[in-house]
Amino acid sequence: MIAVGTFTYRPARDELAYTFGGRLPVAHVRSGDILEVHTKDCFGGLVRGPADLPSRVCRMPYLNPVSGPFFVEDAEPGDTLAVHIASIVPTRDWGVSATFPHFGALTSTSHTATLQPPLQERVWVYDIDRQAGVVRFHATGSEHTVDLPLDSMIGTIGVAPAGMETRSTIVPDIHGGNLDTPELRAGTTLYLRVNVHGGMLALGDGHARQGQGEACGVAVEIATVTTLAVEVIKGVDTAWPRLETDTAIMSIGCARPLEDAYRIAHRDLTAWTVDLAGLEVLDAYQLISQAGRAPIGNVCDPNYTVLAAIDKALLPQPEPAYRDAHARLRNLANQREEGQVR
Amino acid sequence: MIAVGTFTYRPARDELAYTFGGRLPVAHVRSGDILEVHTKDCFGGLVRGPADLPSRVCRMPYLNPVSGPFFVEDAEPGDTLAVHIASIVPTRDWGVSATFPHFGALTSTSHTATLQPPLQERVWVYDIDRQAGVVRFHATGSEHTVDLPLDSMIGTIGVAPAGMETRSTIVPDIHGGNLDTPELRAGTTLYLRVNVHGGMLALGDGHARQGQGEACGVAVEIATVTTLAVEVIKGVDTAWPRLETDTAIMSIGCARPLEDAYRIAHRDLTAWTVDLAGLEVLDAYQLISQAGRAPIGNVCDPNYTVLAAIDKALLPQPEPAYRDAHARLRNLANQREEGQVR
Amino acid sequence: MIAVGTFTYRPARDELAYTFGGRLPVAHVRSGDILEVHTKDCFGGLVRGPADLPSRVCRMPYLNPVSGPFFVEDAEPGDTLAVHIASIVPTRDWGVSATFPHFGALTSTSHTATLQPPLQERVWVYDIDRQAGVVRFHATGSEHTVDLPLDSMIGTIGVAPAGMETRSTIVPDIHGGNLDTPELRAGTTLYLRVNVHGGMLALGDGHARQGQGEACGVAVEIATVTTLAVEVIKGVDTAWPRLETDTAIMSIGCARPLEDAYRIAHRDLTAWTVDLAGLEVLDAYQLISQAGRAPIGNVCDPNYTVLAAIDKALLPQPEPAYRDAHARLRNLANQREEGQVR
Amino acid sequence: MIAVGTFTYRPARDELAYTFGGRLPVAHVRSGDILEVHTKDCFGGLVRGPADLPSRVCRMPYLNPVSGPFFVEDAEPGDTLAVHIASIVPTRDWGVSATFPHFGALTSTSHTATLQPPLQERVWVYDIDRQAGVVRFHATGSEHTVDLPLDSMIGTIGVAPAGMETRSTIVPDIHGGNLDTPELRAGTTLYLRVNVHGGMLALGDGHARQGQGEACGVAVEIATVTTLAVEVIKGVDTAWPRLETDTAIMSIGCARPLEDAYRIAHRDLTAWTVDLAGLEVLDAYQLISQAGRAPIGNVCDPNYTVLAAIDKALLPQPEPAYRDAHARLRNLANQREEGQVR
Repeated sequence: MIAVGTFTYRPARDELAYTFGGRLPVAHVRSGDILEVHTKDCFGGLVRGPADLPSRVCRMPYLNPVSGPFFVEDAEPGDTLAVHIASIVPTRDWGVSATFPHFGALTSTSHTATLQPPLQERVWVYDIDRQAGVVRFHATGSEHTVDLPLDSMIGTIGVAPAGMETRSTIVPDIHGGNLDTPELRAGTTLYLRVNVHGGMLALGDGHARQGQGEACGVAVEIATVTTLAVEVIKGVDTAWPRLETDTAIMSIGCARPLEDAYRIAHRDLTAWTVDLAGLEVLDAYQLISQAGRAPIGNVCDPNYTVLAAIDKALLPQPEPAYRDAHARLRNLANQREEGQVR
Repeated sequence: MIAVGTFTYRPARDELAYTFGGRLPVAHVRSGDILEVHTKDCFGGLVRGPADLPSRVCRMPYLNPVSGPFFVEDAEPGDTLAVHIASIVPTRDWGVSATFPHFGALTSTSHTATLQPPLQERVWVYDIDRQAGVVRFHATGSEHTVDLPLDSMIGTIGVAPAGMETRSTIVPDIHGGNLDTPELRAGTTLYLRVNVHGGMLALGDGHARQGQGEACGVAVEIATVTTLAVEVIKGVDTAWPRLETDTAIMSIGCARPLEDAYRIAHRDLTAWTVDLAGLEVLDAYQLISQAGRAPIGNVCDPNYTVLAAIDKALLPQPEPAYRDAHARLRNLANQREEGQVR
Repeated sequence: MIAVGTFTYRPARDELAYTFGGRLPVAHVRSGDILEVHTKDCFGGLVRGPADLPSRVCRMPYLNPVSGPFFVEDAEPGDTLAVHIASIVPTRDWGVSATFPHFGALTSTSHTATLQPPLQERVWVYDIDRQAGVVRFHATGSEHTVDLPLDSMIGTIGVAPAGMETRSTIVPDIHGGNLDTPELRAGTTLYLRVNVHGGMLALGDGHARQGQGEACGVAVEIATVTTLAVEVIKGVDTAWPRLETDTAIMSIGCARPLEDAYRIAHRDLTAWTVDLAGLEVLDAYQLISQAGRAPIGNVCDPNYTVLAAIDKALLPQPEPAYRDAHARLRNLANQREEGQVR
Repeated sequence: MIAVGTFTYRPARDELAYTFGGRLPVAHVRSGDILEVHTKDCFGGLVRGPADLPSRVCRMPYLNPVSGPFFVEDAEPGDTLAVHIASIVPTRDWGVSATFPHFGALTSTSHTATLQPPLQERVWVYDIDRQAGVVRFHATGSEHTVDLPLDSMIGTIGVAPAGMETRSTIVPDIHGGNLDTPELRAGTTLYLRVNVHGGMLALGDGHARQGQGEACGVAVEIATVTTLAVEVIKGVDTAWPRLETDTAIMSIGCARPLEDAYRIAHRDLTAWTVDLAGLEVLDAYQLISQAGRAPIGNVCDPNYTVLAAIDKALLPQPEPAYRDAHARLRNLANQREEGQVR
């Protein structure tokens, strides 16, 4: 029923976007299309070794480039855009992290402003072994190395904001953006409110992995080829970004202070549970209070992110969310993977 | 030395702007020009009485319109734009306030999200007597009326943001915007960093007065004719919005949580004091700690605002700030008032 | 009608208290008594010059000593204790301030925890001239000196907490404590809920003055003789600390983040206004929103403090608050000053 | 080498404690002792069904009773008390949760104060099947029931605070207390700083399970028999509560706003990692940034709790933490379980 096309996009350097909104589309896609998108790392590939201190080799605001935006046909304000992440493939055998002056959770910042000098700026280069599924950390001040699981994710994905706004790709908010949660891995479907004609989807900022909160402000940053399947869900609104996997539904809150991100996510998940499963609102609140998970995304970006998650199996015969878009897009992506769709 | 022109701007309804950035200029002005700008109230004039509930008569995002933007000649990124407020004249004999669903300091909100229903939405109409200099409050649930001092201010004034962003006029931030502080009254000079070619100054959201924090989220909202004098200060950068009066200098912080707004403002005022008065940094911190004022602007907008202020008389023979722009613009405005400049 | 006694208390060093609650009373007083209390400075007098770095000469938790507690006869849980500050007299011709490692608004702290080293610890000694009413600041890194108005206040005053708690004198909360607001000057009446049999009033931590927020964490610290008049208001409960002057009523909120302190103070002032002046609750919220002041107390202590204030003249023929305790205690203190009461 | 005794304590009703600190010990224990402690639920067992609304049947401050305190011999200020949780056995076949007026994450509260009325107060009763290891949720507004995994934990455990303070059992802070994290399950060792002679360990507030953040403010509350093994680690200080399991080390931060709890936990875990594994501090920060977990404990108590966790396997041949107390106490508890120790 869904028309299927495959689309590969590799941005030229001067095509990279540094905002959500305010940009003309680089391509058009349709519901049911598969997109294969090449993404740069958050430094635009300029930090390659210990000598490439980000504050020297990068120039503000040219940080955190995204690929896109893609105009999604038939996407109109008030619709929801479903974006299934089929795969995230690192394109290099290394990733990079860093401390950045006055950025991160364990330093004073531009906003948590103090009179203290910044922490030392430093670069860490990680080895990535896709076959083995590991990311290797190398200490800089000692000989210690250790392998961490490769858990590729997309840090930044979103659409053009509402209210005629244009937001830096550093910012996570209602439109998505720099959400920086490990839950944005392959197998997850993201739901975003369409705010403008065509939606204007863009993404970038791949991470080989990150800890909860992305404490130092920078994950293991990678370039990727990320494969997405998209669908417009007509006439269905979505207040805050939502995720769905085979087993769980999740709402995302973006705010400061961090408890407001928690509140937003949990209020939204409560409302979603009421809608989906027909629970009375205080029953939904109660069930989430005992059975919910609340993974922290980031505690470093202009808005912090917290998720609220609950397993679908705990809900009374839930209606498929968003007209079963997750299952449909996952199957679509799988079929293509198996060569049945071209 | 400064070329002086007078410029009157009255926006047509479809010229009103709802963002800082992302708009073409409505007019060009030069350093030393006097601007007489007509501004609408935050509801675009649509709330005129108790029956005009804002959530019914206004349509998102068409709230908080500003007049402009004005392209300021010779203003380039990295310069500072000095904007002296010469006068703010209410154009009606009434002002209006309201509660708005899930907006304000004493209610849960879209971000401090709870499961509670909103407070009742209600409108208050105030009488404004410019001659007497009073704003008359009328209780809605009893016979009580009381006169408050008229203390006209501009709630929203700013330039196009940095980083290619476009921000809603509801938002206060580094570019100015919805600062909502009573210090933006006649006699004050505002300093803003120029982020884009031409700066793109715009303003609106006049208040006949407001309390500190604008607790219910809405001040005594008025339409105004506001007279400004502007000057570009070449090659001088400004990190956060700053104010100067005849007696004091002030820095403005915009952030959540509220203590971050306090921190930003105080760090900036400390740095400004160091620059201006040659104090060592911890001496400046100490002096401000004992002699500073910290008036709260708003505790309702997407970012809260706090100011840090210190009297110029307490500083060691300070260099005039910003090459004496405040005195120059104040005099310019006064001369014009006295008919010496046309 | 009120029995009047005068009582002078000068603590021996080993009588100083470092908590509210958990201490036996040092003396008994009655409603209508005048207390003349000698108080030490926050360092217990141990910081006397630049070489006396607080972290070296003071030993935790022996900071911020208070004099007391005083058992107030007839004070029972659920009553309100009214404490009128008749005078605050500095007992030395100098005061002292300091930076303290990882304490203050413009540094990371034990709770806003970062990996950065502390700011330099330094001591400032101020001259105090009671006759001239000035406090003289001396810069440490340059020759600058400047006179600031003497505006003596009590930083720490409170009663034993509820819930069987004992709190450090560093903490401001519902029981009062380290409120650190300049509004606690002579002429002000403080209302506190009585939580335990006898109330257990104590005070200390005089300031020759402080800026709003006490940014560096330490005011101009002084020893004082402070004269109080006390009264028990039977059967009247008080949720959060409140203040009354001849012209205004004020509520105090203590919390983190700072906006919660603002919310607490404004909700309490709204409720107080409703009770006192018979305004409907949204009318009270509205009037405070336009006519209220919100002076920040501290942004450095374990809880931050914000006040909400409104002028009595703006309220409809208010009932005297707390059965007119403020006027009665002020008159009592004045009569004594004039020698009519011994 | 460690002397081993077994000690069973079942509090009489009037022995229950509602504070940490300020209480005489109920018993003495020694390093290496096994304690079997009966604990009441947070309502003192008074909420048994839908009609037992907590605000009616409970009386403040008699909430969240703990059993203890236990005087630990040889525990002196500056030592660390290691408390291994050997088992937590629910003593009833039911647990209970509730909404409580103006308490919880999705409601305005006493501190996030608004003018809105509270959410409806309601009670949920859960079935507990220890054999099956399940907790059964019953919706109140529909027929939905669902089984959740039994994951028993101790909500409140701590010692007497420092600084001569006495804190309500509702409060989590440096001394432990109402930490409300699911990580306090059987198999975990808790490390707490000893602040007073004898430490004064107490515990209660068992949960059959809770979601991350304990959103509604109340978990599935149970009475328990909890078995602990304790050891005093002489001369080793501990800044904030820490946990150790067979596979991970964790630090706990307690603060508002929530990001400060995150910062505290992560700074402490960074410091611990440096001490334990000899990593340079920025290397530790980096490794935790990529490999750390940050489970939220509570977002409802007077302080919020966030944990920072890292797997021991990721650290370079770590020294056993705290002189291997975790392994020693776990083995001790296991031996007893197997009947080898009496």
